[in-house]
Amino acid sequence: MKRGFGSDNHSGISPEILQAIADANVDHALAYGDDEWCLRAEELFRHHFGPQAKVYFVFNGTGANVLNIDAMCRSHHAVVCAETAHINVDECGAPQRVVGCRLLTVDTPDGKLTPELVRTRLHGFGFEHHSQPRAISISQPTELGTLYTLDEIRSLADLAHEHGMYLHVDGARLANAAVALGCSFKAMTTDLGVDCLSFGGTKNGMLMGESAVLLNPALDVDMRYRRKQMTQLCSKMRFMAAQFEAYLNTGLWRRNAEHSNRMAQLLLSELQGIDGIRVMYPVQVNSVFVQLPAEVWRQLQQEYFFYDWDEVNDVVRWMCSFDTTEDDIRRFTAALRRLL
Amino acid sequence: MKRGFGSDNHSGISPEILQAIADANVDHALAYGDDEWCLRAEELFRHHFGPQAKVYFVFNGTGANVLNIDAMCRSHHAVVCAETAHINVDECGAPQRVVGCRLLTVDTPDGKLTPELVRTRLHGFGFEHHSQPRAISISQPTELGTLYTLDEIRSLADLAHEHGMYLHVDGARLANAAVALGCSFKAMTTDLGVDCLSFGGTKNGMLMGESAVLLNPALDVDMRYRRKQMTQLCSKMRFMAAQFEAYLNTGLWRRNAEHSNRMAQLLLSELQGIDGIRVMYPVQVNSVFVQLPAEVWRQLQQEYFFYDWDEVNDVVRWMCSFDTTEDDIRRFTAALRRLL
Amino acid sequence: MKRGFGSDNHSGISPEILQAIADANVDHALAYGDDEWCLRAEELFRHHFGPQAKVYFVFNGTGANVLNIDAMCRSHHAVVCAETAHINVDECGAPQRVVGCRLLTVDTPDGKLTPELVRTRLHGFGFEHHSQPRAISISQPTELGTLYTLDEIRSLADLAHEHGMYLHVDGARLANAAVALGCSFKAMTTDLGVDCLSFGGTKNGMLMGESAVLLNPALDVDMRYRRKQMTQLCSKMRFMAAQFEAYLNTGLWRRNAEHSNRMAQLLLSELQGIDGIRVMYPVQVNSVFVQLPAEVWRQLQQEYFFYDWDEVNDVVRWMCSFDTTEDDIRRFTAALRRLL
Amino acid sequence: MKRGFGSDNHSGISPEILQAIADANVDHALAYGDDEWCLRAEELFRHHFGPQAKVYFVFNGTGANVLNIDAMCRSHHAVVCAETAHINVDECGAPQRVVGCRLLTVDTPDGKLTPELVRTRLHGFGFEHHSQPRAISISQPTELGTLYTLDEIRSLADLAHEHGMYLHVDGARLANAAVALGCSFKAMTTDLGVDCLSFGGTKNGMLMGESAVLLNPALDVDMRYRRKQMTQLCSKMRFMAAQFEAYLNTGLWRRNAEHSNRMAQLLLSELQGIDGIRVMYPVQVNSVFVQLPAEVWRQLQQEYFFYDWDEVNDVVRWMCSFDTTEDDIRRFTAALRRLL
Repeated sequence: MKRGFGSDNHSGISPEILQAIADANVDHALAYGDDEWCLRAEELFRHHFGPQAKVYFVFNGTGANVLNIDAMCRSHHAVVCAETAHINVDECGAPQRVVGCRLLTVDTPDGKLTPELVRTRLHGFGFEHHSQPRAISISQPTELGTLYTLDEIRSLADLAHEHGMYLHVDGARLANAAVALGCSFKAMTTDLGVDCLSFGGTKNGMLMGESAVLLNPALDVDMRYRRKQMTQLCSKMRFMAAQFEAYLNTGLWRRNAEHSNRMAQLLLSELQGIDGIRVMYPVQVNSVFVQLPAEVWRQLQQEYFFYDWDEVNDVVRWMCSFDTTEDDIRRFTAALRRLL
Repeated sequence: MKRGFGSDNHSGISPEILQAIADANVDHALAYGDDEWCLRAEELFRHHFGPQAKVYFVFNGTGANVLNIDAMCRSHHAVVCAETAHINVDECGAPQRVVGCRLLTVDTPDGKLTPELVRTRLHGFGFEHHSQPRAISISQPTELGTLYTLDEIRSLADLAHEHGMYLHVDGARLANAAVALGCSFKAMTTDLGVDCLSFGGTKNGMLMGESAVLLNPALDVDMRYRRKQMTQLCSKMRFMAAQFEAYLNTGLWRRNAEHSNRMAQLLLSELQGIDGIRVMYPVQVNSVFVQLPAEVWRQLQQEYFFYDWDEVNDVVRWMCSFDTTEDDIRRFTAALRRLL
Repeated sequence: MKRGFGSDNHSGISPEILQAIADANVDHALAYGDDEWCLRAEELFRHHFGPQAKVYFVFNGTGANVLNIDAMCRSHHAVVCAETAHINVDECGAPQRVVGCRLLTVDTPDGKLTPELVRTRLHGFGFEHHSQPRAISISQPTELGTLYTLDEIRSLADLAHEHGMYLHVDGARLANAAVALGCSFKAMTTDLGVDCLSFGGTKNGMLMGESAVLLNPALDVDMRYRRKQMTQLCSKMRFMAAQFEAYLNTGLWRRNAEHSNRMAQLLLSELQGIDGIRVMYPVQVNSVFVQLPAEVWRQLQQEYFFYDWDEVNDVVRWMCSFDTTEDDIRRFTAALRRLL
Repeated sequence: MKRGFGSDNHSGISPEILQAIADANVDHALAYGDDEWCLRAEELFRHHFGPQAKVYFVFNGTGANVLNIDAMCRSHHAVVCAETAHINVDECGAPQRVVGCRLLTVDTPDGKLTPELVRTRLHGFGFEHHSQPRAISISQPTELGTLYTLDEIRSLADLAHEHGMYLHVDGARLANAAVALGCSFKAMTTDLGVDCLSFGGTKNGMLMGESAVLLNPALDVDMRYRRKQMTQLCSKMRFMAAQFEAYLNTGLWRRNAEHSNRMAQLLLSELQGIDGIRVMYPVQVNSVFVQLPAEVWRQLQQEYFFYDWDEVNDVVRWMCSFDTTEDDIRRFTAALRRLL
């Protein structure tokens, strides 16, 4: 399949990541996380997120999110999140099945929660008939490619803590956010009071590697058992840790994210000369959401795979990734121009 | 860490597997299983297990087992298995949490169920106070390195079907069993009436790749949603499929398993001249269970990592893998001799 | 506590119900439902809902709702319901914990779903990342005291069936609806295509007794085990069945519901002369939702317990029950007048 | 159905209990436990179990057991219990479904755990692949009608606490045990270190009433939400509390239990003259387990309903209850004599 704009997990593996896997393929290593690669990768997480950060490697983003929710909640708790949140829309009900808790969703214009929006869900405390609000979960960047400012994250963390709640960040694309905001991971999470984080690498050049990162040590209770019991414990974990080492050690996370963000800006600028399309949200990271006539996007899908994000309103999502080239964008927009 | 006998998941990746991953790392591919590597790998599963075989790739053995149990059972059902079964002992209660069902365990001398042993658990049908027996689950080879004959598997399948139940095989090391029995995968499963199978590659040279294989098409209902909801859906699935393709296409599964089985026989023969140790079970695949004085195995663990299988009775497990060398065995048994 | 308007489960037991319990208190009876009272009560359910109706007695409304959802759904399914639905708001997440499924909620002006509203949730069929819509659940009467017409229920049943889905009715107060609509239970459920029903008696004069009634025989699979496993199997069930017998056999359900509905109308007419209050919804059964100044309803709560339904908008709920008297209403509205 | 020996929940309601329900049937009361009957009943639990006792009323014994397990365990924990335990055998897997944890069962000669037996299950602490032992659960009296001495309970409590675990007592028939041992409830539970208790009344003359009693205040966290979420919250709870008040206040629990225990002794003495039968266990409370020829017990079942406890070994269970009469026993044993 030629390169397109379907998803950043349609791209493959960064060469540095593949090399790291090959380099780790020597002799034997303890399984399940007790190897030297894991030790080094854990040290890198402490470097990037602060000394109290505790990382649990998992297979995928759903695993990371559900493990974090399980760290914060029991089944009678509820998580406040945007209606568009991955945990709400795209995990086939994994939080409900695995943790058994409720999600309290809020409609948002741009995928972003605000204290005002969250407060509409903060009631019923102490009333046994209602699930008890226990966590706020945001995605940074959001599923719509928008970003929270540091102040906005801090205000949500403060709101959470005022109510004895936790703040979780779904950071499947956190690198893209860090690059866009020009800040470190720590400045965007730990320093603002974020309690736990799903930190992903798969969408930014890794073969497979996600993680639940506890920034609030009070949450770090019996996590290893829960990860195992919810089927997220990797046996040959050195090969996942080696990927994270290569990703975090040499700035690969930054180079890849800078590239895919830049490609999205290029795509945006190429689109701006085209009539009949409307960019839906600010393009802040590596995705562009566009409204365009149904017959156009359907025809374009004959050539390029991409998701119709909102079929009713004819909105589609185009996603750049670490291996998107300028040429890819020019061919794609040329094809689009031909159709319009 | 030098090579030892701790586990077959302490070894790394077969070169052919690593090459297959590198070869698959071209351009873009659809995520979540709709790529050409998956199509080819699925075809290979049908080749090895028969045309009705339907494979669902998952991350690890626990995921494969739980997905299979979820295919067979609802929460009010029960699975009959050996007390030593991986699903009972080594998955931290994943079947209970994820499926919500009961396991009805049976003590066995050698890890193997028999129709007689299973029948002791087949009662209470129709009685609403009792979980309803719905499946029999066996491991081939067992967790104690023993093998079921084809006739033994068939008799358990027949027993299951007589009671409207299913037979599941945990085949995390099925290749070692096939090699030892000199039969095809199909002859050991589909042809005997096995309904579903956990088929693994990770312990035999893959980086990471397991699967739930439905051999009884009646079980193939809504599996994709359940795999997703229980957090076992891989995004860049082409890299898992590419491994299975390399594993199944060229006989790698056989070469690796033959080697590790042969190494276990070599280890066994080296042990036979040594006083003070007792081999506990027939060595039929790639593991050797040995009883020896506590002070000896504890000292040996200073040099080599391995599991004390049964601390009370001083039984340890030594496991050979695809990369074990004759030299590894000679050094190991030399160290053992020095201690005895 | 004097009689008030807090809830129809603040009232006690109809004398006929208490007598039925006393009458059933003779000698021994099989436990768990195999007694003559249960047989007779089941026959009465068939009389009221049609010959295919299959009733499962449970302890409370949450048990009835969750058992019905479990009959319709597995964990990867979703139930479309009003945001205000009891299953969504007032069961502390029981469907999520016990069944593991998602609820897809819809904002409504009056607690009532419409085909248009439901359709906004009917997408993602076949997409493994999304919970699969499997059931529509409505409350008749709704939690806001409004009623669906028979045509409205039929249109929702038709919509459900067009999509291979089921229609569930939460009928904790179904008697009040039947009386208000002047129709039989069957005309309001079975005849319209309702697939399953939570049918309650506790709020209308029984001591304790609810039920899951399957009207679509295809749903009647392994229900006894699920009821037991979710902790809803009653041992001395004759005493629950005896209540239902007295409730359904002699028209008690009708007399009690007629009375509480009439009392709500009386309350409404008494309110109409009072300035400063606003009745929020049509008063169709036994509840009246009123908006009034915060200082007034808070002071009135000193004398009478009732729930603030929507604290933000100063809406409270007043509920009549089978034992509400005209005098109760006059005293209550007199107290209210004094405060305004 | 005439009175027999099938179960102590085949009997009806003690007249005192029925009267208490009738007496509570006045005016209105708050639902869900905030009424005066509940306050008085809770006070009685503190009187009987000590000032720190916290009681949560539930519908049935399975609800009480599961709520207690949920207080002690999360899903990655395990409960050590006898193979014959009600939570293991007779709840259709409710602990697995609702809590998601494992039960670690132990074969026993007489239904009783000992520290030696329990210790065989206390391993794998800290090993993430194994469910973590978290509680010991015993039944007092056991399902086989045998009793733990106070010293035996204390030794199990001590063992539990040494390992950071809890001791749960399933006391569905605790009154029968207290009467047999001649001690108070507190002396048999709180004073020995029992952490939580399922305390039942239904089998000893109540209509319906069970409870989870937390004796260790550290367990009393968020219980109200969990009771609600697992569907065990009663609405018209005054009628359950009123039963417990009558049961505990006037010594009814004692009178009823003394009677049923005495009837079991009478039954035992009547049996002793009969050839061809064998009493299996010491008759310490109100049940008698008897081995007798299959054709005899099957014929006797034509006249009297009772459970075959162990069909393979021709063991049946005969149970006396609060309303068993001497005449009942004489007729029953006469029928038995005729058949032998």
